[in-house]
Amino acid sequence: MFVIVAYDIVEQKLLNRTRRILKKYLTWTQNSVFEGEITEGKLHKCISEVEKVINKDEDSLYIYEVKNPKNIRKVSYGVHKNFDDMFL
Amino acid sequence: MFVIVAYDIVEQKLLNRTRRILKKYLTWTQNSVFEGEITEGKLHKCISEVEKVINKDEDSLYIYEVKNPKNIRKVSYGVHKNFDDMFL
Repeated sequence: MFVIVAYDIVEQKLLNRTRRILKKYLTWTQNSVFEGEITEGKLHKCISEVEKVINKDEDSLYIYEVKNPKNIRKVSYGVHKNFDDMFL
Repeated sequence: MFVIVAYDIVEQKLLNRTRRILKKYLTWTQNSVFEGEITEGKLHKCISEVEKVINKDEDSLYIYEVKNPKNIRKVSYGVHKNFDDMFL
């Protein structure tokens, strides 16, 4: 399936840790967004890792799941940044 | 259709202006994310307004479109913030 993961994480240390986990599974496409194709099993694993890191009282994580990638269309405006090379 | 709009906008002034436009059409659900159901006509109008504001050399805007909202599932972790009341 195709997923978009968007997050708001307050503490920089937890933010970096979350990004390090997400990077193992998905592509970093915007400052606060990862996306990509992933199996249900891997997504489950990814979420359970992230859940252990974030502060549930102040952080938020949204996962948008689309079973069939054909059902989602992405249109971009402006620059295309590549965050994947960014050091964490 | 259902859309998710995610943005990275460098200058605070342009960021506020972009958010003011997006607020007219969609729901502000995360610091850098708006979402909601919208007609193609309104989305077109919204994008053309935003395109006039952002700096295409340093900002980025991603629009994920899902024709049938039944094809997308959203799962949230942590806090649910409401940005819609935030003053811009």
